[in-house]
Amino acid sequence: MTVPPTVQWNSDTCTVDLIDQRLLPATCHVVTIDTLHGLCEAIQTLAVRGAPALEIAGAAGMALAAYNDAEPNDAYEMIVSTRPTAVNLEVGARRALEVWQREGRAAVSDVALSVFDEDASRNRAIATRGAAILRTIAEELGGSLNVITHCNAGRLACGDVGTALGIIEEAWRGGVVDEVFVNETRPLMQGARLTAWELEQEEIPHAIIPDSAAAFILESEGAGAAVVGADRIAANGDVANKIGTFNLAIVARYFEIPFIVAAPESTIDMRTPEGADIPIEMRDERELLDSEGWPEGQGHALNPAFDITPSELVTHTVTETRTISQGHPPGRKG
Amino acid sequence: MTVPPTVQWNSDTCTVDLIDQRLLPATCHVVTIDTLHGLCEAIQTLAVRGAPALEIAGAAGMALAAYNDAEPNDAYEMIVSTRPTAVNLEVGARRALEVWQREGRAAVSDVALSVFDEDASRNRAIATRGAAILRTIAEELGGSLNVITHCNAGRLACGDVGTALGIIEEAWRGGVVDEVFVNETRPLMQGARLTAWELEQEEIPHAIIPDSAAAFILESEGAGAAVVGADRIAANGDVANKIGTFNLAIVARYFEIPFIVAAPESTIDMRTPEGADIPIEMRDERELLDSEGWPEGQGHALNPAFDITPSELVTHTVTETRTISQGHPPGRKG
Repeated sequence: MTVPPTVQWNSDTCTVDLIDQRLLPATCHVVTIDTLHGLCEAIQTLAVRGAPALEIAGAAGMALAAYNDAEPNDAYEMIVSTRPTAVNLEVGARRALEVWQREGRAAVSDVALSVFDEDASRNRAIATRGAAILRTIAEELGGSLNVITHCNAGRLACGDVGTALGIIEEAWRGGVVDEVFVNETRPLMQGARLTAWELEQEEIPHAIIPDSAAAFILESEGAGAAVVGADRIAANGDVANKIGTFNLAIVARYFEIPFIVAAPESTIDMRTPEGADIPIEMRDERELLDSEGWPEGQGHALNPAFDITPSELVTHTVTETRTISQGHPPGRKG
Repeated sequence: MTVPPTVQWNSDTCTVDLIDQRLLPATCHVVTIDTLHGLCEAIQTLAVRGAPALEIAGAAGMALAAYNDAEPNDAYEMIVSTRPTAVNLEVGARRALEVWQREGRAAVSDVALSVFDEDASRNRAIATRGAAILRTIAEELGGSLNVITHCNAGRLACGDVGTALGIIEEAWRGGVVDEVFVNETRPLMQGARLTAWELEQEEIPHAIIPDSAAAFILESEGAGAAVVGADRIAANGDVANKIGTFNLAIVARYFEIPFIVAAPESTIDMRTPEGADIPIEMRDERELLDSEGWPEGQGHALNPAFDITPSELVTHTVTETRTISQGHPPGRKG
């Protein structure tokens, strides 16, 4: 099927169209949102998620606010407070805020359109660059490889083209990838529900696995690389990404396979010196306890939404303009 | 509350009483089973599970068969085919089979009673030995520690007293353990449903975490040891245990904390030279896909029930008679 854009500002109707990702993989349903409040709720409840998609959502939210005569600073604060970890949300919203303050509310719509277009072109650059890395690894391994990924850094995490999954799909089209192992990504199952769904649309061979089965799969099936996205990258190269990324990076290191992080340059936050400075969103424990059978009011869980993978475990960080390889923190253009 | 025995042969009524673990943590319900077929179904559907409990169930199943005039070899085959990975099931059933063949069907009931009693006493020995190891680690750390565990190797995995969780509880009663982090253990949630439930009954401070959050928790909260059970231990010390154990062992090694495996001697299978020789049960992919929202007939997953942790990652293996420390495979009494 042709998948509609994940999230898009519609300048004709002054609305935001987005795929309600909470309904996947069962249904691919596009909702139209015409208020900032509605968009913030969609962000908070993960109807739309993924760092690059949130950058688009941040700008689109400001465009909604501008059309609805909101106060720009209030709108900005409302948007950025929905998710504390992803820096891209703030990047998109701030860019729109600055144009709004400089050129007036009528100019904000064009910012939202530009952010969408730029996302698509930079992700295509990431896919090309990353696929070339996978090709090099595959050649060393005799021609092709399996890859493992975590969460969703695909089309559904971006406006139109994915980052980590964009690399994997590009490499698969080039004959480099045999099979993709998809960590289901508890508790919200973005891998099982979103990444596997995207791979199914593209008819790319894949299997969902429990997050805890990564070591078993790398031992029994083998994989030549792990490829993931990022929600924020600190100046020293530490990577904030979906909970479980750090576990996977440790497992990849044990099996001595490259760990590749794919993200647009806007994900690199030079104002954040290191991973320890990145706030980690702790989500409601009921996201775990409900599915574990604990009656309301019973049970206790910790539910961090993200973790920090230290840069020492990251082999390559791939952006639209460069590849940062181990030993070169992002601050050093290399 | 007083928790009834997990699984027990009742020689008065010639029935097996067991806690239906599928109903936990919401309800602690004891079912009475009076046919071998019913017991095999309980084993297959994980109403009763855990290596030592399966040893009791194996002997109790033979006692049921003996009382119901079954053919001993048929009964034995039927029992051991229910779960291929856990060696203890076969140990319990074979012991009963041999007595049945040697002394007649009337003697089988006593075997089932003995297996239960022996399980309790050997688990108490494991708890004492393992708690002493935790105390030594705690003393090096300044008095106490957090621990992390996976799946359920507690009271609910045994007849009456746990192995890994027996150690943790004993150490907690001795003031050595501050808090227990419990991997939820996807897909069947034995950690979240069973281990956390047991800890709640004992009022031991604990938190359920997603399996993939182990690295985050060890980084942010810290832990002094990982303690798990085992379903089968090969002659070279490789450990088959619930899927995710291998991941956790790799993460523990990255954080340089001891990885402790607790199991009765009967779990050590000297006929199996190494982990690669242990058959791994692959369970129905729907166990994953249903909870991930995939409609019937769609989606694809790999659902291994166990993995193999290489002995090089196991710091101590604790049994009722000895502690096998790294570099000493179980074959060498040390």
